[in-house]
Amino acid sequence: MINASIITIGDELLIGQVIDTNSAFIAQEMNKAGFGILRRVAVGDNKEEICKALDEEKVHADIILITGGLGPTADDITKPLLCEYFGGKMTVNEDALANVKHLFINVFKRPASYITERNLKQAEVPDNCTVIQNQKGTAPGMLFTQEAKGKEKIFISMPGVPHEMMSMMTADVIPVLLQKYNPSHIGHRTLLAAGVGESFLADMLQDFESRLPANMKLAYLPSYGMVRLRLSANGVSAAENNSELDKAFEQLQHIVKEYLVTDQDEPLEKAIGKLLTEHQKTVCTAESCTGGYIAHLLTAQPGSSIFYDGSVVSYSYRAKEDLLQVDKRLLEEHGAVSEEVVKQMAAGALKNIGSDYTIAVSGIMGPEGGMPGKPVGTVWICVGTKEKLTAQKFEFRFDRERNIRFTALNALLMLRKVILNDEF
Amino acid sequence: MINASIITIGDELLIGQVIDTNSAFIAQEMNKAGFGILRRVAVGDNKEEICKALDEEKVHADIILITGGLGPTADDITKPLLCEYFGGKMTVNEDALANVKHLFINVFKRPASYITERNLKQAEVPDNCTVIQNQKGTAPGMLFTQEAKGKEKIFISMPGVPHEMMSMMTADVIPVLLQKYNPSHIGHRTLLAAGVGESFLADMLQDFESRLPANMKLAYLPSYGMVRLRLSANGVSAAENNSELDKAFEQLQHIVKEYLVTDQDEPLEKAIGKLLTEHQKTVCTAESCTGGYIAHLLTAQPGSSIFYDGSVVSYSYRAKEDLLQVDKRLLEEHGAVSEEVVKQMAAGALKNIGSDYTIAVSGIMGPEGGMPGKPVGTVWICVGTKEKLTAQKFEFRFDRERNIRFTALNALLMLRKVILNDEF
Repeated sequence: MINASIITIGDELLIGQVIDTNSAFIAQEMNKAGFGILRRVAVGDNKEEICKALDEEKVHADIILITGGLGPTADDITKPLLCEYFGGKMTVNEDALANVKHLFINVFKRPASYITERNLKQAEVPDNCTVIQNQKGTAPGMLFTQEAKGKEKIFISMPGVPHEMMSMMTADVIPVLLQKYNPSHIGHRTLLAAGVGESFLADMLQDFESRLPANMKLAYLPSYGMVRLRLSANGVSAAENNSELDKAFEQLQHIVKEYLVTDQDEPLEKAIGKLLTEHQKTVCTAESCTGGYIAHLLTAQPGSSIFYDGSVVSYSYRAKEDLLQVDKRLLEEHGAVSEEVVKQMAAGALKNIGSDYTIAVSGIMGPEGGMPGKPVGTVWICVGTKEKLTAQKFEFRFDRERNIRFTALNALLMLRKVILNDEF
Repeated sequence: MINASIITIGDELLIGQVIDTNSAFIAQEMNKAGFGILRRVAVGDNKEEICKALDEEKVHADIILITGGLGPTADDITKPLLCEYFGGKMTVNEDALANVKHLFINVFKRPASYITERNLKQAEVPDNCTVIQNQKGTAPGMLFTQEAKGKEKIFISMPGVPHEMMSMMTADVIPVLLQKYNPSHIGHRTLLAAGVGESFLADMLQDFESRLPANMKLAYLPSYGMVRLRLSANGVSAAENNSELDKAFEQLQHIVKEYLVTDQDEPLEKAIGKLLTEHQKTVCTAESCTGGYIAHLLTAQPGSSIFYDGSVVSYSYRAKEDLLQVDKRLLEEHGAVSEEVVKQMAAGALKNIGSDYTIAVSGIMGPEGGMPGKPVGTVWICVGTKEKLTAQKFEFRFDRERNIRFTALNALLMLRKVILNDEF
């Protein structure tokens, strides 16, 4: 297998100020194209550490993908460093220069006078690299080659700004690598299971795992009350690999069918959007404690206007009364976090927004707001239709962020059950 | 400086199926405590690669922090591997066993019979490690020591499940490391600037940067239309370091004051929450294209009920008409993405939710839905009060996710200006 290493550069990665989403994207794209990832290394804006990483990774990896440190500011040292590492000389690249000017004038819509010396300097690159144009920003990508362990190794340096890197990766880097190598195929199949623990699943799947052929592997990826199961296969031929993998994946689905949410590597909210679209039904939400997070999850999906109508985020009592017609007396008697109120919120949303299904939630997410009998983490969730509403109480014991996420997760799981049990 | 390396283990990291948030958290906590991070390395569930990473990192780092691969399933190989690497023998740890039972019975509220052999096996650990109890899950943490390059190195293995690792890190790992080492102090000061490009800022700050003392460093962290500027200092004494750093940070704020959003390392929405709370004002939102994302950002802040009243997420025409009293004729004549409609949405939200300020947005986030004269990325944003509403048109050219984020960002920036210009 052709293997790559990813080197991400930036002090911000070592003090934890940004989360490295670039590596995950690069790894996904490389895997899809049939390359393996050997290691990911993050180093600071530090010459010695960057060189050490290059020295180490080129020994074992065929391809070294580098992001970060290409910006126009003093802490961006990657370009001169690579120039020196590969023994080149900085020169202006005419295409890169034209790109800087094009971006400022045509894309950022700035006058030519707005372009500074510093911007123009972005077009300088080592003379021994192949330039990869940056369609989204001013820092060009660079491809170098060098022999290590008797083999030619490829080094590609990309900007660290995520959307610039993503565009460069898919438009140029992957095609160049596919042309040069003929990577062996890796296949992955992923499903999402909910309502079951990792250990319990592992016991159910012990026999299945032990019978897998040597080139297949099952991984458990637990997160937020769900477990994703990923079955991977390494094979020489794409077609053969796929049919064997598909067979094993079908067995896997059959074993966990009771807990199966989706047989795709997709989030729960996407699976629910597809389910609603298939059944030509719509949903609306009435959110108190999740503050619009359920609406956000559903509307982050392209095409969500087909299945999603809207939400009332009723944070204040007044919003609950005026926009959802929750009875003031019920609020005073039972409090906002109660079965009575969450059911009225659901009924109000159905009446005012007019969808087929609704989700209503009310709870105490913390860190403040707990009270006797209703500690932080107490949540009422109601889902249903005009004909039937079902409410359930939950007690989460996490921090604010996780309480919000678990509330949304459980609300969506409840909705899924109602849709599946509904007769059409 | 005492330096640490972070090794994260899991195939899911190398195929990009999960984003590594653990490393960022560990790096933040270590930095706060005065330790440096030398490198972060991610490797797969592969014995050879894990051992290679341990061999390499112990040469340069004093502390090696490891996460992942401690689960109860077959792909979790870290524990037996560490046992072998450090020459130990697996034995049951009584405290860990008691913890497994405690968690199932008292926290997960399961009958004792629910505990499987696989769960109990979690309490087996190498006999040459110091066990670190896991307060949130069944996999115990482990601390090993080994000499390398004539110095005693510390290895700490933690679970990969984020909330388990986070709890272990703050409750046990940091205190243990602080007790053993007396780390030198690193100070960071971060501000957020908006409405200005990185190159332009760099030109403004060139003199400032060149005058910084040798132990100070300025970093540019661009993201989503904003740039965070981070000033860092290394020093022996915490107090001295801070006063020098504070002085330089004041100068920095002065130079960029025109673009300064907050002088804290905090997101824009938190800064706005603080601003509203200070001024004892509240805000509501009427969101079409952002689908509740602005509401979610604001309500993710603890204590947001003080400054946030609620939102109408009016995805459908009907929701706009019924919940915000948008004129049907206006919708038909100008379309939902228009100055007229977004102003009525704002007025409707103010009337129905009764806050001091409001934000209303309507736009086309893509990938579908563009039309002649209104391409994907066209957005109208309106902010203001009952007395005065201001609307502005934007044209973003990103993917759906980034269009949603940029809409929210610009809406919050507009709100901030209105609050600051308001007379109290």
